[in-house]
Amino acid sequence: MTAPVHETAVRVRYAETDQMGVVYYANFFVWFEIGRVELLRALGHSYREMEKLDDCHIVVAEALCSYKKPAVYDDLLRIRTRILQVRRKTIRFGYDVLRDASGELLATGETLHVICSKTGRPKSLPEKYLRALLQP
Amino acid sequence: MTAPVHETAVRVRYAETDQMGVVYYANFFVWFEIGRVELLRALGHSYREMEKLDDCHIVVAEALCSYKKPAVYDDLLRIRTRILQVRRKTIRFGYDVLRDASGELLATGETLHVICSKTGRPKSLPEKYLRALLQP
Amino acid sequence: MTAPVHETAVRVRYAETDQMGVVYYANFFVWFEIGRVELLRALGHSYREMEKLDDCHIVVAEALCSYKKPAVYDDLLRIRTRILQVRRKTIRFGYDVLRDASGELLATGETLHVICSKTGRPKSLPEKYLRALLQP
Amino acid sequence: MTAPVHETAVRVRYAETDQMGVVYYANFFVWFEIGRVELLRALGHSYREMEKLDDCHIVVAEALCSYKKPAVYDDLLRIRTRILQVRRKTIRFGYDVLRDASGELLATGETLHVICSKTGRPKSLPEKYLRALLQP
Repeated sequence: MTAPVHETAVRVRYAETDQMGVVYYANFFVWFEIGRVELLRALGHSYREMEKLDDCHIVVAEALCSYKKPAVYDDLLRIRTRILQVRRKTIRFGYDVLRDASGELLATGETLHVICSKTGRPKSLPEKYLRALLQP
Repeated sequence: MTAPVHETAVRVRYAETDQMGVVYYANFFVWFEIGRVELLRALGHSYREMEKLDDCHIVVAEALCSYKKPAVYDDLLRIRTRILQVRRKTIRFGYDVLRDASGELLATGETLHVICSKTGRPKSLPEKYLRALLQP
Repeated sequence: MTAPVHETAVRVRYAETDQMGVVYYANFFVWFEIGRVELLRALGHSYREMEKLDDCHIVVAEALCSYKKPAVYDDLLRIRTRILQVRRKTIRFGYDVLRDASGELLATGETLHVICSKTGRPKSLPEKYLRALLQP
Repeated sequence: MTAPVHETAVRVRYAETDQMGVVYYANFFVWFEIGRVELLRALGHSYREMEKLDDCHIVVAEALCSYKKPAVYDDLLRIRTRILQVRRKTIRFGYDVLRDASGELLATGETLHVICSKTGRPKSLPEKYLRALLQP
């Protein structure tokens, strides 16, 4: 019984580079967000509807990234996302960013989230999401 | 009787540069937005309250920028914003971006906006804003 | 004999939305950049190599966007890019942004570029790119 | 003998908000970068010149942020930056983000950096920077 893992592809945009000639560090967190949304989609759920229909917002409480090698312009990357922990009111995701062509690991990261209503109030994750996230 | 003009200072962030070693072109539009918000503030109005209290959103309908010289990292810039035209339901702003140290003109731009409610419906600008924007 | 046109798909990121609940206007210019790079790739050229191997930088001189309807979070968009004009030292691109599901036109835009060396000096587009861009 | 601490003001931009109505989480890392650059400036050094004249790049190896309360549009923030550790080839910074009006703590963070040449090679921090960063 293993936790869901999902990979999604991202191509580095010119806008994401900086004058060092590599991707600016904050952008990895944007890719992490894409990773968790696509993992949710692969599990059968749209985060857009999760917000709209169920008033469930996955609010970030903690975020960290460890940078191994630079990502450069036009690189095709694989964002590998997995669920590290699911509780009634919190979810922890883990991420690897890999250069697709070489398989090199560029960065790893983690985010911790609290489920909140639109007004920012913590709430329990509805059963259907819990089941999807906990599926073996 | 001249239209209101306002200057606000912006320092170029590392995040705003790209691998050409200059500011990425889309960021000028972020500065334009700062320019028009600070012009409103100088006229006695907060755009935050305009949205929150009066349900007035200055939605962009057109935007253009003409780039003369590159802005580079750590440059202190002056965003000079002026009102080109005010109508009941639309506002047109003009912008100059200057390098503060040298006075060089880096870019000029324009944006056209439609006043809308939160739901995106065009509406008339409340009298108090109209008066402020039209003041000589 | 028609000018090259290319369509590329972009999914709206959470990071690209703003508190109006729609995509922030400057991000359309980031998508335009993706559009022109993917058009170049479809014509057989990588912009990364164009910069690295041929010291050809497609520097933006003018950019404009006309916004028709908002793009919203998680929308799958089609960026339709075409070449409007190619000269020795300048290229003009045109763009349409469409919502893929409905085919609605969300925005149109144009950018004018000057071919420059890394140091910002205008130069002529090498023959191989000229041929590719002018192909019927 | 206390480590250098520096505070710099940042006003939340509309571009930095997302459809939750708060600042998108990755932007805190952009503010951290502003914090460390302004701390360096307060110590008598320009990061622009550090890169240009001394080929010293403060490359990020690790970054983390803990989010306490949301930052919202137009908030005036204080980014409080301090040096946690300086070694020959690495620097660790700590950050607090506070809402200026209320003094509320919105987030805390840390970044670890490796000093590198333009080509990404680790190198020792030149003596003059070391002295400035270690000053009591």
